[in-house]
Amino acid sequence: MNTSRRVVLGSLGVLAASTNLAASATAETLPGIHQPGIASHSPGQDHTYFAAFDLTTSKRADLVGLFRAWTDASQNLMRGETTDGDSLESLDYAPARLSITFGFGAGLFAADKFGLENSRPPALIDLPRFPGDELDPARTGGDLSVQACADDPQVAFHAVRQLARLANGVATLRWTQTGYVSRPKAAATPRNLMGFKDGTRNVDTTNPAEMARFVWVGNEGPDWMQGGSYLVIRRIRMALEHWDTTKVAFQEQTMGRTKHDGAPIGGHGEFATPDFNATDANGNYKIAETSHVRMAAPEMNNGMKILRRPYSYNDGSNVTAERWPPWREGLEYDAGLVFIAYQRDPRTGFVQIFKKMSRMDMLNQFTTHTGGGLFAIPPGITRGGYLGQKLLES
Amino acid sequence: MNTSRRVVLGSLGVLAASTNLAASATAETLPGIHQPGIASHSPGQDHTYFAAFDLTTSKRADLVGLFRAWTDASQNLMRGETTDGDSLESLDYAPARLSITFGFGAGLFAADKFGLENSRPPALIDLPRFPGDELDPARTGGDLSVQACADDPQVAFHAVRQLARLANGVATLRWTQTGYVSRPKAAATPRNLMGFKDGTRNVDTTNPAEMARFVWVGNEGPDWMQGGSYLVIRRIRMALEHWDTTKVAFQEQTMGRTKHDGAPIGGHGEFATPDFNATDANGNYKIAETSHVRMAAPEMNNGMKILRRPYSYNDGSNVTAERWPPWREGLEYDAGLVFIAYQRDPRTGFVQIFKKMSRMDMLNQFTTHTGGGLFAIPPGITRGGYLGQKLLES
Repeated sequence: MNTSRRVVLGSLGVLAASTNLAASATAETLPGIHQPGIASHSPGQDHTYFAAFDLTTSKRADLVGLFRAWTDASQNLMRGETTDGDSLESLDYAPARLSITFGFGAGLFAADKFGLENSRPPALIDLPRFPGDELDPARTGGDLSVQACADDPQVAFHAVRQLARLANGVATLRWTQTGYVSRPKAAATPRNLMGFKDGTRNVDTTNPAEMARFVWVGNEGPDWMQGGSYLVIRRIRMALEHWDTTKVAFQEQTMGRTKHDGAPIGGHGEFATPDFNATDANGNYKIAETSHVRMAAPEMNNGMKILRRPYSYNDGSNVTAERWPPWREGLEYDAGLVFIAYQRDPRTGFVQIFKKMSRMDMLNQFTTHTGGGLFAIPPGITRGGYLGQKLLES
Repeated sequence: MNTSRRVVLGSLGVLAASTNLAASATAETLPGIHQPGIASHSPGQDHTYFAAFDLTTSKRADLVGLFRAWTDASQNLMRGETTDGDSLESLDYAPARLSITFGFGAGLFAADKFGLENSRPPALIDLPRFPGDELDPARTGGDLSVQACADDPQVAFHAVRQLARLANGVATLRWTQTGYVSRPKAAATPRNLMGFKDGTRNVDTTNPAEMARFVWVGNEGPDWMQGGSYLVIRRIRMALEHWDTTKVAFQEQTMGRTKHDGAPIGGHGEFATPDFNATDANGNYKIAETSHVRMAAPEMNNGMKILRRPYSYNDGSNVTAERWPPWREGLEYDAGLVFIAYQRDPRTGFVQIFKKMSRMDMLNQFTTHTGGGLFAIPPGITRGGYLGQKLLES
């Protein structure tokens, strides 16, 4: 082994990567009417790496260049191949069902940037401030979003890392977030860090009519968004130390479900339809009026559903102040939920539902939203095309 | 379902937990001459949750109470059972090969605390400050350590969370750190976030003579430490953005190994013994004088080995300043290595090896030690006994 052999190997690596890029037009992975990573990941893809980017250019040509490079690289990555200049930490690793989902924040449509100010979809609103919001600007917003989901955390991070490198000089990382799903022995609903099953009632991703109604943008959207969706992400810290001091009966009342089997209060089994009209001997609702499950239910939101794809996050611990007596300050877990939801229109989806929940949901005393964003998720990339092509060439 | 049924269920839960506690004396999991989680985890246990605690009591009885409670709870947890007051986020989850490893920091032996000042082992030194150290006090030290390792991240965190709850009023969290190992398709050496295979040369945990020589405390230690070990943990941030801009040939020179197959420079295949004497046509060492593999090699350290059990960590990104031109400040990955090493004596182990490496290792320009600690790991808990019993009853 000597330097010259290493150099030759290096060149071969570049050659191989170039061949992959050339072959990308024939890839089956990405082209489609929807982007991957929305309808398609349960129960695999138990790890995610989410990244928001800020654009540092105002040149449309830079943007097109970036989106072309991201398109090619993402197709290679989803096939388990390397990219040009790859950092190789997932070399010889399984493709791990990697999906990469791109999104556009409001900043992309800012005036005096790329000439896209008239293309901003009305649904890509500025999210209102909700009661209790403690959004850290350093964890909020961004001009572009990239979410990688995979069976393996290193494969997910690897993907974003290659895309971030390819963005050099055009976009820089604004914030990032890791997440995971941990699953019980049987193929059952996973528990979140509050110890409750999370995901029992959700949009059925195998039901095209439900997906069309609640998730995919239809004729109402601008042409370049049809088949796309809107992503709302919220980093929700859970006050686990406080939660753990409360009684299970109280937790169940707060949630509106039992902790062990996840049944709605008064119902039998996790998948029983909650009876929101049932009352106890005193005439009180069995599922409390401000319980989490009631506040979030389609029955209480004009039938509205959003597709939730939550991950837990665990960023260790840091100093925080409690929001309850005796208002201690000290080290607490920085752990909770990466709430991720896809919807056809955030105005009638997340915003409508959360406007009420953020004021009344009993669970709020244990949760703090510390970051997040809203991103327009364009449809799948057409064969031979590139990310956002319809938007940029319209 | 009504409140009274929930209360009954709750009481049954407590009863069941108590029964488990009573049964712990017959457990096969924990009692042994060594604690679990040191010799026994590869290639499973790909997730870790490490926690350091500060004691908030000076009463020896509190300490004994905590160590008894931790002993009972840890045995339940390692069997996949719940503890009294369990937060249940791993209910119905597989035990996931959970191991819990307890350690004692120097603070336990402080004067005017528990009367243990004369029991501090000479090997439990105050670590010297090494060149380049940027240890954050909020991520460094601690009176006690708990490391949970498991196949599942939620099971590992769940274990520490129960133990932290049981420490209420006696000890509080000081710092915590998550970590993971991600593995290639074949049963091969995992790659770390620099893209290199990590762990090729290590103490052979299946070789009792090697373990006795390098890892387990022998007759030289105080009686209560025999069969124990010493844990050095270092949170090592990697400058991945910078690393990714360097050429593979340079990276290989820095590491002293090839990136693709992990072979020592000049050798064939990952497991070839590095030839540290081989020179090139110019008379320079093929494996560079200050390459990482040479600096760390037993051949260059009087035959000394330490048992490394590294995890990668990925805490997203935050603002940091680069240590190289043009000294940019900006958002960078907060990701790297949770370096964990077990050794018979840190003075001849980590300190001896790292004293030289911290000055000369070429890899240092891409790594920053941002936290860590040294903990005495007592031997396994005897049947019916409790953590640290020999120390506290001597």
